[in-house]
Amino acid sequence: METVDTTERLRQLRGLMKQQKVDIYIVPSEDAHSSEYIAPTDARREYISGFSGSAGTAVITLHKAALATDGRYFNQASKQLDKNWELLKQGFQDVPTWQEWAVEQAAPGDDKPGLTVGVDPTTITAPEGRKLGEKIKKKGGKELVAVSDNMVDWVWAKQKPARPNEPAKVLGQEYAGKRYQDKIEELRKELDKKKAAGFVVSMLDEIAWLFNLRGNDIPYNPVFFSYAVVTPTTVTLYIDESKLGENAKAHLMGVTIRPYNEIFSDIAAMVKEQTATNGSKDAASTPKRKYFISTKASWALSRALGGEENVEEVRSLIGDAKAIKNSIELEGMRQCHIRDGAALIEYFAWLEDQLIAKEATLDEVEGADKLESIRSKHDHFVGLSFDTISSTGPNAAVIHYKPEPGNCSTIDPKQIYLCDSGAQYFDGTTDTTRTLHFGEPTAMERESYTVVLKGHIALDLAVFPKGTSGFALDTLARQHLWAHGLEYRHGTGHGVGSYLNVHEGPIGIGTRIQYSEVPLSVGNVISNEPGYYEDGKFGIRIENIIMVKEVETKHKFGEKPYLGFEHVTMVPMCRKLIDLEMLTGIEKEWLNSYHQQVLEKTKSFFTEDELSRTWLERECGPY
Amino acid sequence: METVDTTERLRQLRGLMKQQKVDIYIVPSEDAHSSEYIAPTDARREYISGFSGSAGTAVITLHKAALATDGRYFNQASKQLDKNWELLKQGFQDVPTWQEWAVEQAAPGDDKPGLTVGVDPTTITAPEGRKLGEKIKKKGGKELVAVSDNMVDWVWAKQKPARPNEPAKVLGQEYAGKRYQDKIEELRKELDKKKAAGFVVSMLDEIAWLFNLRGNDIPYNPVFFSYAVVTPTTVTLYIDESKLGENAKAHLMGVTIRPYNEIFSDIAAMVKEQTATNGSKDAASTPKRKYFISTKASWALSRALGGEENVEEVRSLIGDAKAIKNSIELEGMRQCHIRDGAALIEYFAWLEDQLIAKEATLDEVEGADKLESIRSKHDHFVGLSFDTISSTGPNAAVIHYKPEPGNCSTIDPKQIYLCDSGAQYFDGTTDTTRTLHFGEPTAMERESYTVVLKGHIALDLAVFPKGTSGFALDTLARQHLWAHGLEYRHGTGHGVGSYLNVHEGPIGIGTRIQYSEVPLSVGNVISNEPGYYEDGKFGIRIENIIMVKEVETKHKFGEKPYLGFEHVTMVPMCRKLIDLEMLTGIEKEWLNSYHQQVLEKTKSFFTEDELSRTWLERECGPY
Repeated sequence: METVDTTERLRQLRGLMKQQKVDIYIVPSEDAHSSEYIAPTDARREYISGFSGSAGTAVITLHKAALATDGRYFNQASKQLDKNWELLKQGFQDVPTWQEWAVEQAAPGDDKPGLTVGVDPTTITAPEGRKLGEKIKKKGGKELVAVSDNMVDWVWAKQKPARPNEPAKVLGQEYAGKRYQDKIEELRKELDKKKAAGFVVSMLDEIAWLFNLRGNDIPYNPVFFSYAVVTPTTVTLYIDESKLGENAKAHLMGVTIRPYNEIFSDIAAMVKEQTATNGSKDAASTPKRKYFISTKASWALSRALGGEENVEEVRSLIGDAKAIKNSIELEGMRQCHIRDGAALIEYFAWLEDQLIAKEATLDEVEGADKLESIRSKHDHFVGLSFDTISSTGPNAAVIHYKPEPGNCSTIDPKQIYLCDSGAQYFDGTTDTTRTLHFGEPTAMERESYTVVLKGHIALDLAVFPKGTSGFALDTLARQHLWAHGLEYRHGTGHGVGSYLNVHEGPIGIGTRIQYSEVPLSVGNVISNEPGYYEDGKFGIRIENIIMVKEVETKHKFGEKPYLGFEHVTMVPMCRKLIDLEMLTGIEKEWLNSYHQQVLEKTKSFFTEDELSRTWLERECGPY
Repeated sequence: METVDTTERLRQLRGLMKQQKVDIYIVPSEDAHSSEYIAPTDARREYISGFSGSAGTAVITLHKAALATDGRYFNQASKQLDKNWELLKQGFQDVPTWQEWAVEQAAPGDDKPGLTVGVDPTTITAPEGRKLGEKIKKKGGKELVAVSDNMVDWVWAKQKPARPNEPAKVLGQEYAGKRYQDKIEELRKELDKKKAAGFVVSMLDEIAWLFNLRGNDIPYNPVFFSYAVVTPTTVTLYIDESKLGENAKAHLMGVTIRPYNEIFSDIAAMVKEQTATNGSKDAASTPKRKYFISTKASWALSRALGGEENVEEVRSLIGDAKAIKNSIELEGMRQCHIRDGAALIEYFAWLEDQLIAKEATLDEVEGADKLESIRSKHDHFVGLSFDTISSTGPNAAVIHYKPEPGNCSTIDPKQIYLCDSGAQYFDGTTDTTRTLHFGEPTAMERESYTVVLKGHIALDLAVFPKGTSGFALDTLARQHLWAHGLEYRHGTGHGVGSYLNVHEGPIGIGTRIQYSEVPLSVGNVISNEPGYYEDGKFGIRIENIIMVKEVETKHKFGEKPYLGFEHVTMVPMCRKLIDLEMLTGIEKEWLNSYHQQVLEKTKSFFTEDELSRTWLERECGPY
């Protein structure tokens, strides 16, 4: 992590800003699709500031420059930013947000005229753009202007990596489980019910899901750069045609293919035409239908559609549909988690053998690499679903820890080892965390592991009526930690895609208020990952993927279905870290039954691998 | 419940409507203070429609009349409404809300001009008035007008009961625990922090709390008709001066007393003056301060203050402060609940003896009357805090059951008996529900009682970090019911006043989203009342009052306080209804410890009452 000299880059950018009459320029970290991970070509904020963390916004005036990021990245940012930059530590009480800082700069006061703020409208969402624009005007700035050509791209010029152009391939019916034509018909029904003129799809995972296509344009996420528009009579996919092979083209028979960049002019024309048609009818008798876009769609899309008058920002209908997996996807989840579990079992057995029997020296990255190589041997393996968190001792307390090759710790067998990892398979996406100890854990480590485990089991065993949200269930996972005066500062569960993004909405288990708005439904796939972290000492997290199913209850009040979970992750819990005396009979029963399942489902992988088999049988032994 | 002939009343009202150019007149059930219970003089909706239920709105056009109410009252409304009225069953999918019905009437369509809707602006809240007015205009009606003189009052005329004029008496420092001058100073600090020009207080319990006064103008609620205005330099109480004795006047030294009805002209003048003062200064340098009113304040108040430009509608700062009881109030709660528990114990022992040993025939009202007479013998008793729910068998399944003298059921010793009751004492307000059985309960009754009890205990034992809301804790009370496929359709807990309203905000335990916005704090007093109801068969509810306190935990992550509950209700749980085999060790321990406390704290009341003592000792015996 070295300091980057940004003097020349900023000089050029400011020259361009003056030319374009922009006094303040905002560079968010997002790509045009609000992707969680971005392609190198979209890393404009990193290029202009030198700061490479995943979250942060740069604001550049003609004389100053500020980079805002959150607590995870304060250290990294202060190392990477050069003297041109001021660091805005977000979350600190006396530090302005980047929006406030930008607004301050735009309103110099003392009777000076308000200044113009510019932003690439593809890099912020429509509500963000609207709010920021209002604030600038209200506080005495001039205005927020949408600058269509990204100014950082112009400075970056020839050094800028090309936009990835990996092929988008057809995901077979044996994995997708539903024809894309049927998905589109169902979407149209929903749109009609909600009186929408159409849906402009901007999230890359939603497009991949909708068309049963998978790509490789963004690390870890099997998606491809594209937009889509679905109306009652048309389906258009905006994609560079060179990404589509013969097979994909045949698959997309009946879908209009248009170049990626044409989306903006096309939808502007589409709205114009609709308005013209409406004008000829009795306006009062047919209220105007609006185009739906996701609340995460860019300001550029909303503007192209003519803004609020023609647009309704909604929780994506496709996101809702995608979160409810069909039976083929659910079976795929089960199967890929068995293979993935076998890989983790093999890795943990190997790691213990290396560290203890062979007294080998291994660092965190070597561990992660070994795990990836084991995973990659398995059927249907495509790649990892996120950066492996392979962390020893105090590093395990860093919730988003990422070991760097050549700059990471040696795995200490006398300390806790936390491994959070996952992979993409054709039949599903995995995400598993196990916390292990190869030596003698402290009393506090066993106590905290066991209360985390009790919360994990409580959530796994939860039964709840249809209509209950992940917000309402969150406390079940925390209650035992709370009773000990312990707590974790992250959510308990996130939705998981089917050979798609490892984090997907709209469901979640946690205290975010939006989770209260979406009830859990049969077919949802979600993580169950309570934890506990002691800064500078150790971290614990136990994560399984669980699927919502209908359960049998003794009674059935209100004739409403009662729901519960099925766990698909198949990796034993750490015997050494469990304090049996803290478990109730029901919890022990759960552990025994879980380990029995793990053993049965994975042992066939180890008929010729005694090391792994022995480790597996030991860890799965009855309590 | 007889049908009321409203023909003449409606004829007179319509005559007046024509005279005042109002085409549609809305009569809500609320008084001018959004009180939960109203005085007879404010029962205008009942007078004009004949329907006497607690919830409902009447909408009268020149030719039609509609009464909207919810599922609790469909039966009663159809009996009480005469042929002039259409019943709008609220909650049914195809039935318009009263707002929709009113808007439909106001916009007759077919090129007919839109009509004028009128309402007494003291009887709807400002946001309601605003929304309804917008809807009327948007859908083609003319407008919503505020009709200051209530038109039903004019028709009601001489038959209308007078506004109660009971005295407002000083609540001594030994009960209030804090000088009202200190409360006002703290309120002023909060107002200053929030840059408010002042607070116009409209909720009667907030005024009673703020000034340490109690009245008797509304059944069950020890409040008095009044308004108050607090600014940085003034405190004004709007009240009929005849309500204040010498003592109260001396107590209120320094508070300006003005007639109740002068509030509207006074605040209009106050705003005018403020605007004039502001005008003389540099407008940009001192942004205009707004007057705060509660979101439940009437449209009339908001209008008198000049509307949104001058007003900010907030969750009441006084409501927030009132919900955090001081140590004297908390001790009062403990003490009054011991006396109240003794009264319930004496009543239940008496009832069992009457029904079983003496084989007496008693109806539900006779039971409730006996309980009231026992309570009234106790120190500091003022009156009941709500209508006693004394219910046998299937009546116990009616959540808001109210037995009527001469028209209620005989208590059946072979069925469940549910009693939900409470009282006002100088030192606190009580609210307790116990479910009993005097014979042989069915297996289902025992199973459901025990899962309700398990939920009650889980909530009572909850430990949670500061910042946790009642929304997050609700699931703890429901989890065991859910596991059996059972559920209850009401909240789990409501805030309770200190010798004030038995239901008070802003806290609550339940699935209402607003409960997620208010964390539980040390000093909160709230009910814990899970239940289960089988229509036509039986109902179960177990309700204690619990108080939030800081608790000791083994660890203390993040140095944040961890909170828990102290229960103050002292009445045994029903032995016959508990299935011991369903309880865990911790739950049995809780029961034994609870019964030990009940026994110790109440037995001194029964040194000369063998019947009660025997019953108490039997019910509190160890498991």
